[in-house]
Amino acid sequence: MKSAFYTLSQIVAELGGEWRGEDISIAAVQPLADATADHISFLANPKYKADVADSNAGAIIVSQKMADEFGGRNLIVVQDPYLYFARVARLFSPIQKAVAGVHPTAVIEPTASVPASCEIGAHVYIGGNTVLGEGCRILAGAVVEHDCVLGNEVVIHPNAVIYHGCKLGERVEIHGGSVIGADGFGLAFTGSSWFKIPQTGGVVLHDDVEIGANSMIDRGAMSDTVVGQGTKIDNQVQIGHNCQIGEHTVIAACAGISGSTKIGSYCIIGGAAMFVGHIEICDKTTIGGGTAVTHSIHEPGHYATCYPLQTHKEWARNAVHIRHLSEMNKRIKQLEKTLETIQSVEKNKE
Amino acid sequence: MKSAFYTLSQIVAELGGEWRGEDISIAAVQPLADATADHISFLANPKYKADVADSNAGAIIVSQKMADEFGGRNLIVVQDPYLYFARVARLFSPIQKAVAGVHPTAVIEPTASVPASCEIGAHVYIGGNTVLGEGCRILAGAVVEHDCVLGNEVVIHPNAVIYHGCKLGERVEIHGGSVIGADGFGLAFTGSSWFKIPQTGGVVLHDDVEIGANSMIDRGAMSDTVVGQGTKIDNQVQIGHNCQIGEHTVIAACAGISGSTKIGSYCIIGGAAMFVGHIEICDKTTIGGGTAVTHSIHEPGHYATCYPLQTHKEWARNAVHIRHLSEMNKRIKQLEKTLETIQSVEKNKE
Amino acid sequence: MKSAFYTLSQIVAELGGEWRGEDISIAAVQPLADATADHISFLANPKYKADVADSNAGAIIVSQKMADEFGGRNLIVVQDPYLYFARVARLFSPIQKAVAGVHPTAVIEPTASVPASCEIGAHVYIGGNTVLGEGCRILAGAVVEHDCVLGNEVVIHPNAVIYHGCKLGERVEIHGGSVIGADGFGLAFTGSSWFKIPQTGGVVLHDDVEIGANSMIDRGAMSDTVVGQGTKIDNQVQIGHNCQIGEHTVIAACAGISGSTKIGSYCIIGGAAMFVGHIEICDKTTIGGGTAVTHSIHEPGHYATCYPLQTHKEWARNAVHIRHLSEMNKRIKQLEKTLETIQSVEKNKE
Repeated sequence: MKSAFYTLSQIVAELGGEWRGEDISIAAVQPLADATADHISFLANPKYKADVADSNAGAIIVSQKMADEFGGRNLIVVQDPYLYFARVARLFSPIQKAVAGVHPTAVIEPTASVPASCEIGAHVYIGGNTVLGEGCRILAGAVVEHDCVLGNEVVIHPNAVIYHGCKLGERVEIHGGSVIGADGFGLAFTGSSWFKIPQTGGVVLHDDVEIGANSMIDRGAMSDTVVGQGTKIDNQVQIGHNCQIGEHTVIAACAGISGSTKIGSYCIIGGAAMFVGHIEICDKTTIGGGTAVTHSIHEPGHYATCYPLQTHKEWARNAVHIRHLSEMNKRIKQLEKTLETIQSVEKNKE
Repeated sequence: MKSAFYTLSQIVAELGGEWRGEDISIAAVQPLADATADHISFLANPKYKADVADSNAGAIIVSQKMADEFGGRNLIVVQDPYLYFARVARLFSPIQKAVAGVHPTAVIEPTASVPASCEIGAHVYIGGNTVLGEGCRILAGAVVEHDCVLGNEVVIHPNAVIYHGCKLGERVEIHGGSVIGADGFGLAFTGSSWFKIPQTGGVVLHDDVEIGANSMIDRGAMSDTVVGQGTKIDNQVQIGHNCQIGEHTVIAACAGISGSTKIGSYCIIGGAAMFVGHIEICDKTTIGGGTAVTHSIHEPGHYATCYPLQTHKEWARNAVHIRHLSEMNKRIKQLEKTLETIQSVEKNKE
Repeated sequence: MKSAFYTLSQIVAELGGEWRGEDISIAAVQPLADATADHISFLANPKYKADVADSNAGAIIVSQKMADEFGGRNLIVVQDPYLYFARVARLFSPIQKAVAGVHPTAVIEPTASVPASCEIGAHVYIGGNTVLGEGCRILAGAVVEHDCVLGNEVVIHPNAVIYHGCKLGERVEIHGGSVIGADGFGLAFTGSSWFKIPQTGGVVLHDDVEIGANSMIDRGAMSDTVVGQGTKIDNQVQIGHNCQIGEHTVIAACAGISGSTKIGSYCIIGGAAMFVGHIEICDKTTIGGGTAVTHSIHEPGHYATCYPLQTHKEWARNAVHIRHLSEMNKRIKQLEKTLETIQSVEKNKE
């Protein structure tokens, strides 16, 4: 699939934009630094303008603003070079369609419904009453337990696990090793031990949700855990029971979201950000990597806190005072008070 | 199993407590907000008292203290409504017992011992000399390597992996994708490269331990890594080699515990808490989410530190000073000294 | 394999060093506290010198410096006792070689190349055009997709997944549940949704790389993600697309490295350390556990910052001031200014 060639005019015919220069044949997309004569590259950030001169790329995707600066080059001129680059890359690497068929080692329970258009890999297990849409790809070793519903063109990568009773919308993609629908962490203390609260809710992933590798989305305790349409979740993200994640939100790797937390739509959650449970984050909130989100956020904006980087020696010298900031504040207050007294005494003298 | 109905009097006959009002039939447990006429709900926290009035729940589990306030409602009056709710939920969703039988695609080495009461799913692998107790459920794609010992009614969820030589007590439950007994991270530097130290210990999980999805408990270097009875561990928790975790401790998702650290019994470890290695945490210690535990704790209590949440702009303005707290402290000291001198000079003048 | 005995003279003949005392037979390596008469132990840190007296170890590995203090004991005297201990441990637990053969339930696509010397476990899947070296061990449930190249003696533990097109050098070891080559997290915003950027690069793991359990190394967006020779990565480590990790670097559990970050050789990365993307860390840098690495590091050294541990009560009292450090700094400046004025006024009076 990657061996196809497209001329600039063919690319523009498919995706829009305007081409300039020579209508050369392109074999692949590459970054400016690596591109050669049959590659197309892109300039998204004007900061890297100088790299264009050094690039051997056969053609470059640029914005209208920048186009005139690169008169001698073959260009495709577009509004959003980064998005256009993504679309060109997709042209060269189209989404892989299901190769219809069930591998002889796959196990599909008799009450499951698997359309003939699906690709079911080696050692896959599909449980009873589970219903797959058209064109699903369930790859080697993946497990979809009983009573699940998968929309059309869902992709489950190797060794991922979908527990029973989960619902995945159209084109949902789950990467290797991820576990959808394991029990939430619900416990009641008996006075001497922990009694497990049955987790009887499910997980609902709406259309176009993508989940990275080794991520986990727990089933709800009584109602469902829900991820909204178009939300993209990276690797090793933990989403606790009964969380509600909005639409078109992105959550970077290693983030952890405690149970019953609601995150809005169009949020951007940085890697390793951690959320306590039972809070609400409004739409269009950006959370920086590594930030501990300890209370609800009602105002969209960019929230980001982390302990600043230092050498260990510097840190040791400074960190000791963090434990005494309250006293430090009192000492400053005392100084202010004393100075005020001195000044007023001076004034009285005058 | 979830289709059974119980009347209030039947529930009380099973679980104790006192019912009031009408002896209605209950189909399920639901939270106050979602419950309808054939649901039972609960009020555990008096803070949510007002929600009871708004709830359509057919019956409500309440404490003795609160019971008289809800005269018109059908109630079950108990000492601990949250624990009672958990028990009622379990009544409606009993623990799933093994459906005895070995799936034809499962591979059990001839020297393994698997009682006829066990449920062995599709594509399961059980290694040589491994011994299972009665009524174990080893679900699709799970791997239990050689020389393991599993107690009665152990549940291993899909695609989890138990390395060789691990011991799991009765009713231990391991969720999907978890890896028990991988090599600890032991390395000796040769001067130019890292020499791997063989990890020849095992992992011992005592009775009633539960491990969430995609968690890891490494095997010991020479002796075992041990998790005590009744301890509950959430998803994506990392426990390094030779750790000793006590009994009835709970560890929330994304926590990481470095090698050789000892954690006591009845501890509560918040999500994403991180522990350095070779330290000891005493019984009944609570660690807040995201806390870095950098030294031993000998006094039970609630430890919790994390960088407070702010907007990125506010953070940038403040964080720069953290790197200079030591200087800030010196400046305050200097001010105090100067003021003292001024004051003593003034005094001398009087 | 562990049942072999070695006398002190045999050990020294294999591994060098000098033995003293009686040439006793050794059955295993054990720490000082656990060792009995047929065990050999070691003293690496002079701090634990006193433990030697209490140890029942039959023999002890010590440095030249310490040897004379333990005149009455059976010793092996070496330059680096810890490394020597590791080598002795390896003598008792040699690296397990492949038991040649393909399990009848394994699926190997006809175009894959699997030498007869390889061990292919139950329910393994090996995709088309994938080429394995001699003596590889691919254990139960592991998946190696199409177009991969594995060097000699690679070990893939149960249920690990290698996506298509990855290259693993000689003796690379991947532990259970790890996912190598899943898609990087590359998205372009369309104005209303996220467009996925095809991830067409691969992953290259050079010789002697080891990856712990449930770790992830994403494939590159266009070029490869690369881990250099001899680098050792612990459990649950996330390495984003296009990262370049140097040689002989160690990365402890739960660390996360965002896309396109370069880490040098001989670095030591502590557990749960988090790196933003597109930065460079120079060779021989040590990063403490839990440190947020937010910018490039060009000077080798020990960097380590984290919020210091306190009780929740103390933290609450102090943390509030972190949000106001900038104001606190202004107040100190004001005090300094005022005092200066007072002092200069006083001076003028004199």
